[in-house]
Amino acid sequence: MSVLVMKFGGTSVGDLARIRNAAEKVKREVERGHDVIVIVSAMSGKTNELVGWVEETSPLFDAREYDAVVSSGENVTAGLMALTLQEMDIPARSWQGWQVPVQTTSAHSAARIEDIPRTNIDQKFAEGMKVAVVAGFQGISPEGRITTLGRGGSDTTAVAFAAAFGAVRCDIYTDVDGVYTTDPRIEDKARKLDKIAFEEMLELASLGAKVLQTRSVELAMRYKVKLRVLSSFEDTDDNSGTLVCDEEEIMEQNVVSGVAYQRDEAKMTLISVADRPGIAAAIFGPLARAGVNVDMIVQNISEEGRTDMTFSCPVNQVARAKDAMDKAKESGEINFHDLVADTDVAKVSVVGIGMRSHAGVASRMFDALAAEGINIKVITTSEIKISVLIDRKYMELAVQALHDAFGLDSAA
Amino acid sequence: MSVLVMKFGGTSVGDLARIRNAAEKVKREVERGHDVIVIVSAMSGKTNELVGWVEETSPLFDAREYDAVVSSGENVTAGLMALTLQEMDIPARSWQGWQVPVQTTSAHSAARIEDIPRTNIDQKFAEGMKVAVVAGFQGISPEGRITTLGRGGSDTTAVAFAAAFGAVRCDIYTDVDGVYTTDPRIEDKARKLDKIAFEEMLELASLGAKVLQTRSVELAMRYKVKLRVLSSFEDTDDNSGTLVCDEEEIMEQNVVSGVAYQRDEAKMTLISVADRPGIAAAIFGPLARAGVNVDMIVQNISEEGRTDMTFSCPVNQVARAKDAMDKAKESGEINFHDLVADTDVAKVSVVGIGMRSHAGVASRMFDALAAEGINIKVITTSEIKISVLIDRKYMELAVQALHDAFGLDSAA
Repeated sequence: MSVLVMKFGGTSVGDLARIRNAAEKVKREVERGHDVIVIVSAMSGKTNELVGWVEETSPLFDAREYDAVVSSGENVTAGLMALTLQEMDIPARSWQGWQVPVQTTSAHSAARIEDIPRTNIDQKFAEGMKVAVVAGFQGISPEGRITTLGRGGSDTTAVAFAAAFGAVRCDIYTDVDGVYTTDPRIEDKARKLDKIAFEEMLELASLGAKVLQTRSVELAMRYKVKLRVLSSFEDTDDNSGTLVCDEEEIMEQNVVSGVAYQRDEAKMTLISVADRPGIAAAIFGPLARAGVNVDMIVQNISEEGRTDMTFSCPVNQVARAKDAMDKAKESGEINFHDLVADTDVAKVSVVGIGMRSHAGVASRMFDALAAEGINIKVITTSEIKISVLIDRKYMELAVQALHDAFGLDSAA
Repeated sequence: MSVLVMKFGGTSVGDLARIRNAAEKVKREVERGHDVIVIVSAMSGKTNELVGWVEETSPLFDAREYDAVVSSGENVTAGLMALTLQEMDIPARSWQGWQVPVQTTSAHSAARIEDIPRTNIDQKFAEGMKVAVVAGFQGISPEGRITTLGRGGSDTTAVAFAAAFGAVRCDIYTDVDGVYTTDPRIEDKARKLDKIAFEEMLELASLGAKVLQTRSVELAMRYKVKLRVLSSFEDTDDNSGTLVCDEEEIMEQNVVSGVAYQRDEAKMTLISVADRPGIAAAIFGPLARAGVNVDMIVQNISEEGRTDMTFSCPVNQVARAKDAMDKAKESGEINFHDLVADTDVAKVSVVGIGMRSHAGVASRMFDALAAEGINIKVITTSEIKISVLIDRKYMELAVQALHDAFGLDSAA
């Protein structure tokens, strides 16, 4: 018997009518012969209400109690979904994390799934149950306390179940109908991708395309779980949405699959840093300890033992970064002339597995930007991604130009 | 170490401010040296919301899923109460039913507590925990599913914990400040009782004084748990509220402790029933199967092999009772001339353990009613209770007259 995992997020189960709508999709998969494991989030708004109560009660809350309170939202949806399926004559039951049990670490509010024993659910499938509805986002610690996986944890729950049960696929139902070549709000020629490689999805997710949690994509890649993103609110069939899969499964591969952006970046430059071995550690150690998420790093050519060091970080971390650098200067850890922050920049990236085997991607990118008169401030590259920092006011223009230059409006 | 059980109902934990108020009361008991087990209900309104969702989803719902959904309200309160206590520097943690575990039967939505092993909570007390906050109303079945005890189940949870932990007392915090000699809305001289015997409380509870669930009083009586009813919304001390206890502990006992009433009764009379052995079973069997709660029963003197049979039941069950009797007549089970329903009656009762050793209570009651010109339609008596059925329009007058006749406005 083939197991299919289906995950419905908060907006997809936001009220009883939407739960019924989701159940209809589950029913269709049961009729196709699947045993289905449904992972549900809390009804939209419920988790925020519970988190609000906890934070108002106790600003420095005990994470164990936070988890016990916040996990209750998913339990409600799981029961309601099981009841809805039963009303459609589909044998279903709900499972809370501890009942499966979803065994996690003790890192409350950010727990990691360690194991999902199949015995209990497999036994029910063998007895004729067709759908196991599992409360997402939660598990049980070795101490027997309720844990949660952190925000977006329901995607991770879904992928972990798909891996544990050898599922044919893990379908993530959400409020968008798939992964796009770029943000359709910026480029109206943006095209939905039928398939995308895990590695590309990871780069896009970390670049702000918030369709899937990075962590769930990593897990899917590690366990080779076929992941599909599709819409709860449209009619869907076997070809709907976007399949996130191994690159071998993608026959016709564009050189570039998508253009991503991050609007609120800042470019920070340390002027005239003493260039000595260990200087990078001396700069980025204090920044990391201060909680600054440093992204791009560029070091200029050294002259007379001194150099300029440039890095980027989110705009709202600029004050924290300055503070950390000033303190490191005072303590004598590092020595620099000045710290200059440019808070009006954005990052634009092209991502594609095809880059590995195609030369000339970078130059095509730079040509396209130059043709629009867009100045590049910083460049970084990885195997499957090229990112540039540019003035924020050119961001939309850059996305459109690159989308066009790489022919993303038409399939490969 | 002495264990004290404190139970807070839905209105007592209705919002974060009220949870804090309840936590203050818990704190005071900890400071007095108790280890405290707090039993909490769901925040008021929450259970109704969850029940509404279940009923809308599935009119003939699976009670196992109902329990899984509905129990989540208590889990939220338990976590929030534990966090509130921690904020007051009191070592506390929450326990859901399955974590204790509260072992129940598998009768979902109406489960009975079978056992409460002390090991887990005792271990935490030994490690320095001062307060165990337990989600009321719920447990776990032998199959590992979540069960609930039915409405009012949190009182039962509290008494069961008090019995299991040999608690010095079980304090039920609610929105009234104790048990009264009668309803203060009818008799403004009604007086709060300092103590009342279990048996009396049971009679009062079943007569409509809705302070405590009958079931929790029965359990307290069986396990000799001292039960106290007191207000969440007033300053309370060791002498607050009403103590429900063994009659031996009540030194000065009034002959009558209270006057109770039930407004919406109906008096039904089967005219000219064939009087033969087994006739009572032939009448009350079909009524019971039809779900009619028959209360008082009186059989008139038999003449020429026929008799009149009178019984009382709630007004809203009259149609059902008539239907059951008509069907029994059609099927030949019973034979009667007519069924007459008087739907304008009320029941008034006096309750008191002192009756056992004092003669003349009935005549004093009948004299008091006669002095007001109130006609008695039906009388029933038990060891500690005398009830009469009267015209509904005299109900308030009867309560006041009896309260006065038995001197209930002053202590014994």
